[in-house]
Parts: sequence; C-alpha cells; structure tokens
Amino acid sequence: MIDIEVLHRVAATLAERKAASPDASYVSSLYAKGTDAICKKVAEEAAETIMAAKDGNRLHLVWEVTDVWFHTMVLLSHFGLTVDDVLAEFRRREGVSGIDEKKSRTAG
Amino acid sequence: MIDIEVLHRVAATLAERKAASPDASYVSSLYAKGTDAICKKVAEEAAETIMAAKDGNRLHLVWEVTDVWFHTMVLLSHFGLTVDDVLAEFRRREGVSGIDEKKSRTAG
Amino acid sequence: MIDIEVLHRVAATLAERKAASPDASYVSSLYAKGTDAICKKVAEEAAETIMAAKDGNRLHLVWEVTDVWFHTMVLLSHFGLTVDDVLAEFRRREGVSGIDEKKSRTAG
Amino acid sequence: MIDIEVLHRVAATLAERKAASPDASYVSSLYAKGTDAICKKVAEEAAETIMAAKDGNRLHLVWEVTDVWFHTMVLLSHFGLTVDDVLAEFRRREGVSGIDEKKSRTAG
Repeated sequence: MIDIEVLHRVAATLAERKAASPDASYVSSLYAKGTDAICKKVAEEAAETIMAAKDGNRLHLVWEVTDVWFHTMVLLSHFGLTVDDVLAEFRRREGVSGIDEKKSRTAG
Repeated sequence: MIDIEVLHRVAATLAERKAASPDASYVSSLYAKGTDAICKKVAEEAAETIMAAKDGNRLHLVWEVTDVWFHTMVLLSHFGLTVDDVLAEFRRREGVSGIDEKKSRTAG
Repeated sequence: MIDIEVLHRVAATLAERKAASPDASYVSSLYAKGTDAICKKVAEEAAETIMAAKDGNRLHLVWEVTDVWFHTMVLLSHFGLTVDDVLAEFRRREGVSGIDEKKSRTAG
Repeated sequence: MIDIEVLHRVAATLAERKAASPDASYVSSLYAKGTDAICKKVAEEAAETIMAAKDGNRLHLVWEVTDVWFHTMVLLSHFGLTVDDVLAEFRRREGVSGIDEKKSRTAG
C-alpha cells in the first residue's frame, strides 16, 4: 500500500508557503497572483488531463491528474482549506449513499 | 487526523463498478459511455470549482474539488490506474525537488 | 463567400429570447438559470472542442466550435453585449498591432 | 453596423501564418507547437471568460470571448478549416430548427 500520508505532507508544505515571499517558490508566486491565477492553472491541468486521456497515454495521465490535484490543493489552501476537507466530504458521501451516489444527484 | 484511507475505499468501489452493468450505478454508466463522457465530467467539475472559488464560497469549493478528484479517479480507473499511481507521483516529486518544484518546471 | 450576417441574426434571436418565458426555448431556460449555467455550457463545449481536435474529426470540430461561439454569444447577451462588441475588439486589435499581436501580449 | 468582414480578414491572416517560420509570430509558434498547445490556449481562454463573467466585468468579458474566438479560429486553421465552416454550421441550424434548437438537442 502506498504511503497515503504524502497528501498531508503536501498540504503542510502548501500551508507553510503562505507565509513566504512571492519570490520564494512556484506556489508562493501563485498565492501572490491570487485566485484567478490559481484557477487558471486548475483549468489548464484539467485540459491537459483530458488530452492525456484522449492520447491513451497512461503515464502522462497520472502526471496530469497529479497536477490537477496539486493545484486544487493550492486553491483550497488559498481559501484556508486543506485536503482534510475534501476527505471529509468523501466520507460524508460514503455515509449518505455510498460513493456511487446516483440517487442523490440531480440531473446535470 | 481525518481517515485518509477513504481514498482507497473509493478506488476499490470504482474498480468493482467496472464489472457491473451500465445501468447499475452512475459510475457504471460513465464507464459505459467511455472516455469522452468521463473527460466531459472532469471539465465540468473543474469549471464549477473555478466558479465556487470566484464566489468565495468555501463549502461549495470543497464540494466541487471533491467532484473533480472523484471524476479524475473514475478516469484513472477507466485506464486501469488508481489513486496509488497519483500518490506515487506525489512521492516522486517529493524526492526530486520538494513538492514546490519550481526549478524542475519548464515555462508554460 | 458565406453569408456572414448569420451572426447578427443569431444575436438578434438571442436578444429576443431574453424577454421570453424560461420554458419557451433552450436559450430562455439558460438565461433563467443564470451566469453559472451559461458558463458551465461554455466550459463543456470548450472541452468537447478539444476532444474533437484530439480525434482529428474535422466535422465534429466545426460543430463544437459552433457550440462554443453560440454559448459565448448567449453569455454576452446575458450581460447586455453582442457579437458586435467582439467584432469591434477584433478590429481594435487589427488597428493596434495586426491580429497576430505577439508584441502586445504579456507572457502568460 | 460593425464591419463583420473582420472575421474573414483574421481567417486570411491565420492562413498566411501557416507558411511562416515558427519564430515569425505568436500564431506561427502556436502552429509549430501543434494541436495540444492550441487546445490548451482554448481551455485557458474559456476559463478566463468564465472568470470575467463571474466578476461581472463586461469589458474583460468581451476581451476574453474575443480570445476564445481567436484561438478556436487558430485551431480551425490548424485543421484546414475556417470561420466560413462555422458560419455554414450556424446557417444549417437556422434551416433545421431555428438557432434556438432545443428540439434537435439530445440531453447532455
């Protein structure tokens, strides 16, 4: 089993970066640019995920999904949230209806 | 500390759904529709994440990020991959340069 | 030369729909649902454009780009804008630096 | 009435750029980078359109929609298509069911 705690280490690093100078790191510069810059990265990585899937390139797909998760974690951190809030939401859905919660969804 | 193993339970459920009838559940129907349908959901949830962030609605943001993670996990599962592949990639990045890997990135 | 005035006819139809009942048409229902619903459609059609391009399916690509343009026109109309505002912006860029305005762009 | 022919002038410029060196212009460099790079720009500009709409910034919205249209025109050109193909599709929809073609749409 993979060491799942890596997500907590990433979250801790993202929290630390909030106090750093904008020049200190990639993430610090994203925080300084603000919500729009972080959201733009989320959109970009989602698009790259789709393109990797269309290519059927599994290694590329893993890389791009990791980028999506990473940048959504930056966005969460920007709003004072962490991966634990996402995990809690996953657990809530387990409790409500199973993760495959078709019945609780409204038509898109 | 939140029970992080929920991600493994979700992954296990997603793997089980691959053998089910398309009518059995929301996820089974997504698998049956194929790559484009799953990718379209990833794009939709990314867009909703951005809109929740723009609204500054933190609860909504957590919900939408959870949806993004969930549908990227469906996409991974569709290609025979799991959350462990993403976690391994996060760990690889820790090893290479720290998670805040500005130096290893090329300009976008 | 194709009858380019079709864009003005579309814009006129979109303007008319603003006064209609939400049940009257697809566009009327989008207006009633509001900005988020229209934005979600723009994101969806952009994702489908990317997938059509990845498939190299030229007919599908034309269809999806038309959907993107159509839904951005709905969005413009929702904000009291029209295709003429976009055309005016295209003309402004011609005046400034040619349409291929590399010099006036800042690095993304 | 705005000079709608600007779209044909843009299309003509985009066609010319296909024969140019990758270093010659922004568009030439996009062609050289290929489908993924152009698609990534379409995704980015769609995301920025959504953010401008959420901000209720009408001038910014016009700018971003123009960017979406421009980059979809680059994508069309990359596949040997032009704005005329999109206009023809708009006209076909007028013929079939009116532009507000709810009846001809299948549920998303």
